[in-house]
Amino acid sequence: MKLYGYWRSSAAYRVRIALNLKGISAEQLSVHLVRDGGEQHKAAYTALNPLELVPTLTLDDELDMDALSQSLAIIEYLDEIHPQTPLLPASALERAHVRAMALTVACEIHPLNNLRVLQYLTQTLGVDEAAKNTWYHHWVASGFAALETLLIRHSGRYCFGDTVTLADLCLVPQVYNAQRFNVDLTPYPNIMRVWAECNQLEAFADAAPERQADAV
Amino acid sequence: MKLYGYWRSSAAYRVRIALNLKGISAEQLSVHLVRDGGEQHKAAYTALNPLELVPTLTLDDELDMDALSQSLAIIEYLDEIHPQTPLLPASALERAHVRAMALTVACEIHPLNNLRVLQYLTQTLGVDEAAKNTWYHHWVASGFAALETLLIRHSGRYCFGDTVTLADLCLVPQVYNAQRFNVDLTPYPNIMRVWAECNQLEAFADAAPERQADAV
Repeated sequence: MKLYGYWRSSAAYRVRIALNLKGISAEQLSVHLVRDGGEQHKAAYTALNPLELVPTLTLDDELDMDALSQSLAIIEYLDEIHPQTPLLPASALERAHVRAMALTVACEIHPLNNLRVLQYLTQTLGVDEAAKNTWYHHWVASGFAALETLLIRHSGRYCFGDTVTLADLCLVPQVYNAQRFNVDLTPYPNIMRVWAECNQLEAFADAAPERQADAV
Repeated sequence: MKLYGYWRSSAAYRVRIALNLKGISAEQLSVHLVRDGGEQHKAAYTALNPLELVPTLTLDDELDMDALSQSLAIIEYLDEIHPQTPLLPASALERAHVRAMALTVACEIHPLNNLRVLQYLTQTLGVDEAAKNTWYHHWVASGFAALETLLIRHSGRYCFGDTVTLADLCLVPQVYNAQRFNVDLTPYPNIMRVWAECNQLEAFADAAPERQADAV
């Protein structure tokens, strides 16, 4: 397998954690999202990922046909083909709660704050730096307020009970991003408690952006 | 079961299609997203859905603890407890492709164009109507261009082969939204072919916004 990612991409970060937790080795290839207008827009990459986003997971044969996009689809795939260290609970209802937490990050926070959207705000809409930061903080705050409530209901040591799940794989990179943009995280004690707990695990710590080969 | 939704919510629309395809009866309750500042922000609803979005699915006991949010988590739950008429293919790799298509809509198009984001653009950032519409069209176009490529690779009668999947449940409401905002859909012949094919099915047609009790 090859994982095309970028050190600071929080979607790639999620997949790196999954690979580490499951002990799956994958060659990691860097797609520089900023340099030269963004390598994700070059034809060699868009053949693999028409949406021009990271990550992409390719299987051994490297047929474009089999290149997988979307971090949550990739993680569920890894979870299905490597069922040891499951990332979803055993019951359908519990799985639904875990997926809802993961999707709260993946659908309600991250898409609004990723690079291409921030670029559209500043470059196309002419939004200034201060308003861009307010936008960023706004979506983190509304998403994290909801997640904090869900963690009060469902968390144990991790987001859902005492076992690492897909929800933790989404939460930790989102906290990393929020810290990078100086979001005040004191209103979310359960999020920060789970985040610290996850980072005690080598699988999370090793997936951190600064530890990647392409980190600047 | 009770489904809290809104006729024009495309996330609720996805869940309505799933319920119809599986023949699951659920009481449908309307959460008016605009009237009186938005009923999704009232305490009675936010106890069920802290993110203040529709849809929410509640199970018989109606414990807040068991209220399910996030349309894709709800649909996967319904698919697991009612495995007849499966909404995902049998192989892990095929499931990954279907989930990637669904997430392309759910993570890369819809979150950028839903009501709360459009309201933020106009009310907080002071974006005018024309620029708001350009924003809307931009994210539909980039997402649909990618989806069109994925459909060329994977579609049959429907998004993935000849069986309805989760990808179709996401695509059809997104096309409805795009039409509502007058997006030019001629560059996406495969998307429109699949959309028309799906709407031949009563499960899709009955889930359409105009057929809902709260439609205006």
